[in-house]
Amino acid sequence: MSTENIVNIAQRARIAANKLQYVTTQDKSVALNKIISVLADKKQEIFKANRTDKENAEILVNAGTLSASLFKRLDLEKGDKFDTMLKGVSDIDQLPDPTGQITYSCKLDEGLELYRVTCPVGVLLVIFEARPEVVVNISSLAIKSGNAVILKGGKESILSLAALSTAIQSALADTVIPPDAIQLVETREEIKALLELDKYIDLVVPRGSNSLVKYIQSNTRIPVLGHADGLCSVYVDKDADIDKAVRVVVDSKINYPAACNAAETLLVNRSILSTHLIPITTALQKANVKLHLDSESLSHLPSIDSSLIKECVAEDFDTEFLDLEIAVKVVGDVEEAIQHINSHGSKHTDAIVTENEQVAKRFMQGVDAAGVYWNASTRFADGFRYGFGAEVGVSTNKTHARGPVGLEGLVIYKYKLYGNGHIVEEFGEGSGKKKYLHEKIDVTEKIV
Amino acid sequence: MSTENIVNIAQRARIAANKLQYVTTQDKSVALNKIISVLADKKQEIFKANRTDKENAEILVNAGTLSASLFKRLDLEKGDKFDTMLKGVSDIDQLPDPTGQITYSCKLDEGLELYRVTCPVGVLLVIFEARPEVVVNISSLAIKSGNAVILKGGKESILSLAALSTAIQSALADTVIPPDAIQLVETREEIKALLELDKYIDLVVPRGSNSLVKYIQSNTRIPVLGHADGLCSVYVDKDADIDKAVRVVVDSKINYPAACNAAETLLVNRSILSTHLIPITTALQKANVKLHLDSESLSHLPSIDSSLIKECVAEDFDTEFLDLEIAVKVVGDVEEAIQHINSHGSKHTDAIVTENEQVAKRFMQGVDAAGVYWNASTRFADGFRYGFGAEVGVSTNKTHARGPVGLEGLVIYKYKLYGNGHIVEEFGEGSGKKKYLHEKIDVTEKIV
Repeated sequence: MSTENIVNIAQRARIAANKLQYVTTQDKSVALNKIISVLADKKQEIFKANRTDKENAEILVNAGTLSASLFKRLDLEKGDKFDTMLKGVSDIDQLPDPTGQITYSCKLDEGLELYRVTCPVGVLLVIFEARPEVVVNISSLAIKSGNAVILKGGKESILSLAALSTAIQSALADTVIPPDAIQLVETREEIKALLELDKYIDLVVPRGSNSLVKYIQSNTRIPVLGHADGLCSVYVDKDADIDKAVRVVVDSKINYPAACNAAETLLVNRSILSTHLIPITTALQKANVKLHLDSESLSHLPSIDSSLIKECVAEDFDTEFLDLEIAVKVVGDVEEAIQHINSHGSKHTDAIVTENEQVAKRFMQGVDAAGVYWNASTRFADGFRYGFGAEVGVSTNKTHARGPVGLEGLVIYKYKLYGNGHIVEEFGEGSGKKKYLHEKIDVTEKIV
Repeated sequence: MSTENIVNIAQRARIAANKLQYVTTQDKSVALNKIISVLADKKQEIFKANRTDKENAEILVNAGTLSASLFKRLDLEKGDKFDTMLKGVSDIDQLPDPTGQITYSCKLDEGLELYRVTCPVGVLLVIFEARPEVVVNISSLAIKSGNAVILKGGKESILSLAALSTAIQSALADTVIPPDAIQLVETREEIKALLELDKYIDLVVPRGSNSLVKYIQSNTRIPVLGHADGLCSVYVDKDADIDKAVRVVVDSKINYPAACNAAETLLVNRSILSTHLIPITTALQKANVKLHLDSESLSHLPSIDSSLIKECVAEDFDTEFLDLEIAVKVVGDVEEAIQHINSHGSKHTDAIVTENEQVAKRFMQGVDAAGVYWNASTRFADGFRYGFGAEVGVSTNKTHARGPVGLEGLVIYKYKLYGNGHIVEEFGEGSGKKKYLHEKIDVTEKIV
């Protein structure tokens, strides 16, 4: 696609975003339900496109250039995947509207009232990989939050994505939501061009590999919401309960090792090596987890299964294994644990296991991460588990939105000031000048 | 300063930020009051440094390389400026602590409680120009919000800044707040090096010229909070009250023309040219405002004072005059006004004058700006006027913080999860699996 056409896509998204400022919760609900019915109607058409994608992908799998797991994630026909996808749209419809919420109010003067009201961010650019149903999920989140979105999925699912997004656009054509609110692009070159267009695009959400996220973070002035790394740690304190330590460490590591919230580093307090280390490492080894041990922890272990034990190297503590592997380090106290995590972690999610409340609070205060857990698995870091209903992604940013991000991460606010010809000149310190009232307003009955 | 030293400054700021995670509201209050007393003690020393700055600056003024207005802003000795500066610290001490606020809570399971709690962003880099007392103001805001800050002021006030920041650091030496929480750098080269250090710095706040802000936005991966432009508009609708229109337009333009919240564009509805245009433009001309009129508005005006009237060029509608000048354009209706503002404005603050509530709400919904005002001057866009007590800056960003930014813009949040050995493996859809409760927690008595 030419640069001109890319600019045109971004401009149309911006125009759609401007129109979306006016839509009501009811409008959004009508659109989401229309999407459900059109997708259901076009199911066979979508399956046909998906089959062609799968046939093409199968050739790549046989040639060894596409992984079997990626291939599996392409499939829209399997089991109740299609119905689950539609159920997801209906779930998002049921969530509270994140826009139009008053988060601050202040009476500045008689007849001069200020309200801070949440509103859509504007135009989103969301980049994801493989699973074609994500296009339906993200489109629903964008509509619910009043944002226009430009989507780019994995190239393996190109026909499925086109069929799904065409269905969504044709559903929107019958509603007040402009079809340009949901647009699809297909190539990396288009993404490169879009990343330049900070005039039209307000937020980029990359959902995918570390390298994809890092590339985007380094190549745009547009704010990026997401995470490149998920290097989570569990610290087992000297006052840890052994059973809880085993449960939390094992679940954090093995429940889903490829997830960003899986534990990659285990820190163990020096004074409990003889009591806690063996039960924990034994449980990990039983689960087939390879241990990268520092020399101190290594010296405390009998070699139960030498193929699962090796001495670590320094880089292991900066490595996101995303597999059945974990780095193990001995630390002197909670302070050393905090310091290690703040230096080597990715500010995603870190847990402490201890029965000592003071130590737990010290850890939770001192660790600079989106999630700080006490006696709980790092795997709880997830929008659904947090009760958000739907998740845009997980952010390790220090501004705007942090941790699992629900619809709230797709809104910002504007200040609405209602006056009656008020001017600043009449306020001030001198005699005859008005003073600001700065009184709280009861907003329960106000619709702004 | 060498790159190594710059990295060292950033690292020390990060270590200070880590320590600041533990400070209490009381600790902060002690530190702020200590700063007040040390500054008061060292007043003569600070004045001496300020005098040398002024002597050096005077040479530049006489040589014509420094403006008289910049010179005036250097002066710390004038009137009650010093006492006002100290009063500012005490005001910030009185504001509510923006950290430690619970903004979301959810019981996930029996004994598994999630809290979202506000916390400091971390390390700030704040760049400002000329007025040396800003170093005291920003340091106080940083301490109150629990952030470490690296400051860079104008080179004309280099000795005053050094005297002030040395006093602040010596005050902190007697408190639990590490003196490295407040550090000063002096050159543009240091800023350039710091903008690379996204590993240590979390947020950049440039307060200064358009070119400074644009340079920073284009040269860092660190989030930037601020505004490059302040192109505000006032739209006078066909249902506008003439008196209110005159008041709001004149105040928006002349109350402080160099401010970012001054109006730069006046949009007038076509159907009221014969009634409203003359009183408005007459009032503006009386205030010595030069009008850049489009041909349609020009043709409706008798040339009262030709030196203040000229036909506009297209660029006038993209120009921040920052002076007694305004561009005037005739539009057909509120939709055209909204479209003009969304294409040419800077998303700062825009106002409508009308008696028609529906039209006003359409405008306030449709204009994509941090502030949308009905019958009120754009000059109200200010943290103090909004009731925030103190202002970090004004943001035209679409994420994190928008409009005048108080202490709230310097905090983010972390999720604290309190469990009892909970693991994800036990939850799910199958039989014997636990379900998430997702119940709201009454947080009034909880301290997390």
